[in-house]
Amino acid sequence: MELSPIGIVESPLTDPAAAPKQGREGAPEAVLVIHADVAAGLDGIAPGEEVIVLTWLDRADRGVLRVHPRDDPANPERGVFSTRSADRPNPLGLHVVEVVEIDGPRLRVRNLEAVDGTPVLDLKPVI
Amino acid sequence: MELSPIGIVESPLTDPAAAPKQGREGAPEAVLVIHADVAAGLDGIAPGEEVIVLTWLDRADRGVLRVHPRDDPANPERGVFSTRSADRPNPLGLHVVEVVEIDGPRLRVRNLEAVDGTPVLDLKPVI
Repeated sequence: MELSPIGIVESPLTDPAAAPKQGREGAPEAVLVIHADVAAGLDGIAPGEEVIVLTWLDRADRGVLRVHPRDDPANPERGVFSTRSADRPNPLGLHVVEVVEIDGPRLRVRNLEAVDGTPVLDLKPVI
Repeated sequence: MELSPIGIVESPLTDPAAAPKQGREGAPEAVLVIHADVAAGLDGIAPGEEVIVLTWLDRADRGVLRVHPRDDPANPERGVFSTRSADRPNPLGLHVVEVVEIDGPRLRVRNLEAVDGTPVLDLKPVI
């Protein structure tokens, strides 16, 4: 099971430790730059829509199975599958963003907490 | 970017063509069987909760970029990223299921349209 990125995140966020935990907690606007060879797959996405973005959180620790939610030691430890921790066996990021503008293969979006350079794996409609 | 399954779907559904398009369209109960080496990650998930399941749709055609939504030729063709088509460059399945019962590493769930044998990649809470 090999993933092949469909694009990359361009964002002013560069430090995962300083990025918001959730996109609605103050993430700046970002751009999804989709690779030319798959850009035909964007047809049908329109500004104003909410879209699910799946990313590969490439700085994650894949050996982690239990965490303190939100990195706060005051929160009791629990299993990663009951949290949104980036550290997990398959570090797939799931983000619900709002499309602001589409310029060819460049989608400007709101509410994306992924850092600059994060690989994009898939886009899906919110149902 | 290599994925490593965390478990597998056990379901009465065996034929992708006959499976419902969405879990709420009549999917039977199924079981997520989580591998023992990552089962510690389940701590904190409780019956009655909704959980997001990410799967690998291993029978998908990864070269497809445009489809008729819901496999209906009457629907105008559009880009796969604006649809829930299984055929797409990275065939990641996203399912919102309800946990009915937890028996160790076995989670019985409702509303999962993935077929028997589908690899499970990740579980996340609904936020």
